[in-house]
Amino acid sequence: MSASPFTPTRRESVTAHGELRLIALIRRWLGDASPRSPFGIGDDCAVIPPTKNQQLVTTDPVIHGQHFDDTVPPRAVGAKLLKRNLSDIAAMGGRPVAAVVSLALAPDTRIAWLRGFYLGLADSARRYSVKIVGGDITQGPKGFFGAFLTLHGESTGRRVVTRGGAKRGDRIYVTGVLGGSLRGHHHRFTPRLAEGAWLAGRPEVRAMMDVSDGLAKDLESLTPAGLAPALDAGAIPISAAARRSARQSGRAPLAHALGDGEDYELLVVVRGRRAAPAFERAWQNRFPEVKLTAIGTFAPKNHLPAGALRLADYRGYEHLR
Amino acid sequence: MSASPFTPTRRESVTAHGELRLIALIRRWLGDASPRSPFGIGDDCAVIPPTKNQQLVTTDPVIHGQHFDDTVPPRAVGAKLLKRNLSDIAAMGGRPVAAVVSLALAPDTRIAWLRGFYLGLADSARRYSVKIVGGDITQGPKGFFGAFLTLHGESTGRRVVTRGGAKRGDRIYVTGVLGGSLRGHHHRFTPRLAEGAWLAGRPEVRAMMDVSDGLAKDLESLTPAGLAPALDAGAIPISAAARRSARQSGRAPLAHALGDGEDYELLVVVRGRRAAPAFERAWQNRFPEVKLTAIGTFAPKNHLPAGALRLADYRGYEHLR
Repeated sequence: MSASPFTPTRRESVTAHGELRLIALIRRWLGDASPRSPFGIGDDCAVIPPTKNQQLVTTDPVIHGQHFDDTVPPRAVGAKLLKRNLSDIAAMGGRPVAAVVSLALAPDTRIAWLRGFYLGLADSARRYSVKIVGGDITQGPKGFFGAFLTLHGESTGRRVVTRGGAKRGDRIYVTGVLGGSLRGHHHRFTPRLAEGAWLAGRPEVRAMMDVSDGLAKDLESLTPAGLAPALDAGAIPISAAARRSARQSGRAPLAHALGDGEDYELLVVVRGRRAAPAFERAWQNRFPEVKLTAIGTFAPKNHLPAGALRLADYRGYEHLR
Repeated sequence: MSASPFTPTRRESVTAHGELRLIALIRRWLGDASPRSPFGIGDDCAVIPPTKNQQLVTTDPVIHGQHFDDTVPPRAVGAKLLKRNLSDIAAMGGRPVAAVVSLALAPDTRIAWLRGFYLGLADSARRYSVKIVGGDITQGPKGFFGAFLTLHGESTGRRVVTRGGAKRGDRIYVTGVLGGSLRGHHHRFTPRLAEGAWLAGRPEVRAMMDVSDGLAKDLESLTPAGLAPALDAGAIPISAAARRSARQSGRAPLAHALGDGEDYELLVVVRGRRAAPAFERAWQNRFPEVKLTAIGTFAPKNHLPAGALRLADYRGYEHLR
């Protein structure tokens, strides 16, 4: 099934409209997901009311050929653009507020595709209480479609949880299951906003991030100098999609779980060993349907347990290589 | 003089580095223009402290072939990226705070060019007290370079000035001179931040915007239903560059002043006629070196004075056409 953003037929393309008509169309597609100016599209800047909370800003794009291809329906592309960024807000325990979207698009971009993209974006924006408050449209080269979203959020409680703060002996947890995201999860996931906010309210949570480049690579960002993650290979929650991928690739299911990336699950560092039972019970009560798995601990770099996973063997995708 | 962002030599290109090394380089190039994580690059989101002021968000990119070409030095491209957005904050009377930058770049992007780009961005960020707090890098197609900046700011006083609010009889002013921006002004301008903040503090100022697509097109956004701008052709402040452009193009200097765009001057609507003398004196005292010109008034659409400029004859560039 093909859902190409581009069309060879001029009257089906964005150039059949001018910029002003295109902006009017976008405002219609966004509907009530985009507030009225100056709180939305239409002035030099969008206005966001003052806040007493810490503010959060993150930016991630979707680019044709990089983050999606012609097999992904346009609505799913629009939704993915917002959800990728929501996952970053979730990873600090925040609540999303407002987004701006800058498009660079080829003159041969299909209007019907763009409509699907914005309907998907608007739908997700409503679901997660985000307002689309502004943006920009610029012509790009033939065959190019890139949408660059910046999401603005704020803390839900007193603190935001950063990547820094893990200590020796801390436990490492991960939500959900990992791997095989190219089989659909990369555009069908649910950002862990409720879970992230709840975790930020738990004092035993010391650090957090989302898994976007694969656990093997991302976990490095949580690892303080002098320590290393001591992971139990048998504990890694491997998705069914990772197992299916493994049957085709001939690689181990574990390799897919650790290296595929685009999992959009949360990696959570929890203080010491004594806090674990109460923490796990509290999670069970609050999120009975979301798996939370203890996958290892942080140990001194030169005293890793004998059976610990060698993460370097499973490094995920490095961009620009 | 050529300053192409691209190189045929692999070891001079971004692919000679990986993503992680490239991010390390970018942090070095930005230097103290980029605060430490979590207030800058390095976590899932950047953290911005709470504020009691209204917040402002705007987004504008620079794309090779659209907003700059190989004649523009990379430092000027980086500076232009920030200044385009600063001009939008100025147009609402705000103060800039923090920016994120999302790059889509071809594998053949030249490292030395990218360094110049970031040094120019960092230099402007320091000059205008903006922190570069985050971003993203994604691979784009061969020959593509686009940098998408989202700027976050806040009001300087009690109010932000929007585009809405002009009334019959209000005067229209413009700062500086207009036209011929392709002769260098499009990357050498100074965003009118001090002027915008001062204007937002003047109660007689009813509406404001910056001139980016050309006065003939932009003025429509300030014009309320039922009214039309009655401009005095002889009053339009035409730049020397517009006159030089006219000698080459064979078009009237006025056509360049009204249609070229990328002026990054402020269009200001001031209440009635009686407020004008005091307003103009106050401006003179505060900004003796910045020209402020009364160019016309808002009149009822069907009672335009006989000699009023027909703006429709001078509409500027429409994107995507």
